[in-house]
Amino acid sequence: MSKKIDSTPRADGYRMPGEFEPHAGCWMIWPERTDNWRNGAKPAQKAFAEVAEAIAEHEPVTMCVSERQYMAAKEVLSPRVRVVEMSSDDSWMRDVGPTFVVNGKGDVRGVDWRFNAWGGLVDGLYFPWDKDDKVAVKVCEMEGKDYYSLESFILEGGSIHTDGDGTAIVTEACLLHESRNPDLTKHEIENTLRDYLGVEKVLWLPNGIYLDETNEHVDNIVHYCAPGVLVLAWTDDENDPQYPLSKAALDYLEGETDARGRKLEIHKIHIPDEVLITKEESQGVDSVDGTLPRVEGDRQAASYANFYIANGAVILPVFGDDVHDRAAVETLRKVFPDRKIVSIYAREIILGGGNIHCITQQQPLG
Amino acid sequence: MSKKIDSTPRADGYRMPGEFEPHAGCWMIWPERTDNWRNGAKPAQKAFAEVAEAIAEHEPVTMCVSERQYMAAKEVLSPRVRVVEMSSDDSWMRDVGPTFVVNGKGDVRGVDWRFNAWGGLVDGLYFPWDKDDKVAVKVCEMEGKDYYSLESFILEGGSIHTDGDGTAIVTEACLLHESRNPDLTKHEIENTLRDYLGVEKVLWLPNGIYLDETNEHVDNIVHYCAPGVLVLAWTDDENDPQYPLSKAALDYLEGETDARGRKLEIHKIHIPDEVLITKEESQGVDSVDGTLPRVEGDRQAASYANFYIANGAVILPVFGDDVHDRAAVETLRKVFPDRKIVSIYAREIILGGGNIHCITQQQPLG
Repeated sequence: MSKKIDSTPRADGYRMPGEFEPHAGCWMIWPERTDNWRNGAKPAQKAFAEVAEAIAEHEPVTMCVSERQYMAAKEVLSPRVRVVEMSSDDSWMRDVGPTFVVNGKGDVRGVDWRFNAWGGLVDGLYFPWDKDDKVAVKVCEMEGKDYYSLESFILEGGSIHTDGDGTAIVTEACLLHESRNPDLTKHEIENTLRDYLGVEKVLWLPNGIYLDETNEHVDNIVHYCAPGVLVLAWTDDENDPQYPLSKAALDYLEGETDARGRKLEIHKIHIPDEVLITKEESQGVDSVDGTLPRVEGDRQAASYANFYIANGAVILPVFGDDVHDRAAVETLRKVFPDRKIVSIYAREIILGGGNIHCITQQQPLG
Repeated sequence: MSKKIDSTPRADGYRMPGEFEPHAGCWMIWPERTDNWRNGAKPAQKAFAEVAEAIAEHEPVTMCVSERQYMAAKEVLSPRVRVVEMSSDDSWMRDVGPTFVVNGKGDVRGVDWRFNAWGGLVDGLYFPWDKDDKVAVKVCEMEGKDYYSLESFILEGGSIHTDGDGTAIVTEACLLHESRNPDLTKHEIENTLRDYLGVEKVLWLPNGIYLDETNEHVDNIVHYCAPGVLVLAWTDDENDPQYPLSKAALDYLEGETDARGRKLEIHKIHIPDEVLITKEESQGVDSVDGTLPRVEGDRQAASYANFYIANGAVILPVFGDDVHDRAAVETLRKVFPDRKIVSIYAREIILGGGNIHCITQQQPLG
């Protein structure tokens, strides 16, 4: 139903839209790895289901589920969430799903990057990752969308944001990491982004969020809310290890303009109080050689920037930190006056190493 | 995306259309069991692919493939066949897929019968069959079609045909077999068919095709071509064990009328010369305890009635028997003057125990 296309989105007149542009729907994957998600992944499944149902109030959601969990997932999810069988190695649709591009004439295509579990044999988070690496093609095939497939270029969807208007934003920490594309120069990587995202300018933040196991994905520290408008994960505590990372990002962004020459409007959102893994949480995770351990006391890379923009809504992770949760909601109400801000308690998702943006992937309208 | 409905198609005004009514598409499953399909299922995959491509010239085809074979199947199939991941125990979409019903107002729903591998622990052909039994729900869910799900009633799609106009046809050999629904009377079984197929009359042939391992499915001996019009697998050889079975079917049909009171127009199609498993073919199949063996010299239940009616075409199995192959094509040209008759050499399919009708399932237009 769909075919691989050998040119590039740029050559064919396609661009990656901003997440705030209209969606046809949203894709997710059901979590089940017991060496990443505590207590047989049951608490995570509940949280993923809550995210799916919240999004499904605003746009169609497809949940991809393994053969083993198919019927169980269908029992938990309401009939408005479509459940399809799909194998994967974990549940990070943002990073393994296709990046969709559009041509302004009603056509939508996918980009199938190569995936190596956030670092392959250098510092990847698990092994193997072959099922994850097939998810993008399977999604495109199910939807009948043609796709571009990169032969060797490693990239996760969470390591890029676009404004849909010529600009992409990434972090040097991730895209220049030796575990991704060590044989390519920064210039070559930028050219690949220009070709496959249809952008003219790439903004390079130095870092992301402290201890982010993805090598500091951009989607955990900033989020494009509209062309020229970003939220930035921030802390006022100059002793917090996050401070220099957020400060460097702010300084960089204040000195930059986007592809259209706009100065950038930055809205700070303070990070929550530290989220530390409890002993009970740690003990609920199977300890397996080759998978990142979940150790008691470890700080999680919790950030409000890791939200999902749905049609008419923003699905926001919150952490039970009343002061900062409330401040995040208030900022987003100002930034998105026409969208409903839906808060979801997301501790069970961040315990697995990501958040709401990481577990979702929008499919734009053509 | 779809939900289970607790009433019945009859109660909701739905009926199973005739196969000759317009289709939205066709569903198939990729073969791979090495204990049923010789030489790692490679020859069968080639034949299934040929069937899929032939149908895809006339209506959309979705091929359901296991995780293991997904990429291999996508390599073999052209981009016009949609490939989706789905687990199953073998590849008989007719028998494990949903039976679709329509209400004449544009709505299509599925019927999810229970499946026990053609006989369960009594005389089933393999064990287990749990993945097969979930295929119908997965197909409906992928398409967003609501479905009726029978709690315990065993039925395979190949054991029923309908004329879309009030009549179903089945065999006593299969539907009354002790391995299906031994606790139900013939009257109770007939009532279930009336409720779930939306028919008023059930025609009961005594038998199907000699040595048919499905306990003589109706779809191997007759095919409804239009209301009141059937083809019947026939032999002129009174010494062939098929003769009394076909003769009894003919006598029965000549003495019956359908739900609308029509006399039935019967077109005989002579069966091919015996198809016997060769030594080489037998040796290509893994011998596994609990799966029906494929023994050298065994006669296969080869029949031309096991064709698939697509939009504008009939996809017909042929066996390299020039005389009978040609006669089958000629008869079908007369019966279907407006459809293209497409012959496919189907020895590799019958070696697995069925034929083109058994490996396909139409999804009607609403």
